[in-house]
Amino acid sequence: MNLLTFKAIGYSESKTKTVVETSNFKLVIDEPASLGGTNKGANPVEFMLAALAGCLNVVGNLVASEMKFNISSFKINLEGDLDPNKFIGKSDEQRAGYQEIRVKLDVKSDTDSETLEKWVNEIERRCPVSDNIANATPVKISFL
Amino acid sequence: MNLLTFKAIGYSESKTKTVVETSNFKLVIDEPASLGGTNKGANPVEFMLAALAGCLNVVGNLVASEMKFNISSFKINLEGDLDPNKFIGKSDEQRAGYQEIRVKLDVKSDTDSETLEKWVNEIERRCPVSDNIANATPVKISFL
Repeated sequence: MNLLTFKAIGYSESKTKTVVETSNFKLVIDEPASLGGTNKGANPVEFMLAALAGCLNVVGNLVASEMKFNISSFKINLEGDLDPNKFIGKSDEQRAGYQEIRVKLDVKSDTDSETLEKWVNEIERRCPVSDNIANATPVKISFL
Repeated sequence: MNLLTFKAIGYSESKTKTVVETSNFKLVIDEPASLGGTNKGANPVEFMLAALAGCLNVVGNLVASEMKFNISSFKINLEGDLDPNKFIGKSDEQRAGYQEIRVKLDVKSDTDSETLEKWVNEIERRCPVSDNIANATPVKISFL
């Protein structure tokens, strides 16, 4: 087994703003003013949608190449809804996170719709981020 | 029920690079050269770690405020391992995504370790991103 390990360090710069260092980049995450933040970056749940979009692009292109068709344009529309009541500590009735994530792919290619159906099934199966969201993944939190 | 909806649009700029537009920000995602990309941004699975870090910071500060203690320093170390063989289409033996995500919190506060244990349990329960990763979340992919 040949595992790849990815790392990140998040520095709390305020109650809502986090600067995250990955191997090569700094990412700034915040909440909008409407959610009590200082709006210095996209918020955590938007970052999760971005992670999914980026993954679908990489895997989509890889699988299209394997299936020998060309993509001339690829746009990924994502949305998700969450009930903030658990997050703010007001109610435990609903889960804390997105109840579902809807993704609509706008793809222009030189293949037919039957092939595209096979393509999307293969993407869903092989995209790491889609796997981690769609299926349970242990998150082990401890103190340093 | 008062759901909040978050949206993002990902534009494929190359086989590895995606520019994601959220309500107020543009995020650039790519793969490093070692994974066949052009290294213009952190990669999708690093974005997922960043989303989790940002969420833990926001919820950590919110819960500390409810529990009436002060955090003077908060650093979040994250890592996860994945087997790339499913992603590259070579083997179905392992899952595509992170097999687990390990988070180590480095927190300085004016409270005791027993209170911090309660604090971290509450964060884990109420953080939307942690919920979406730790528990299954439907990802519905269709064509526009």
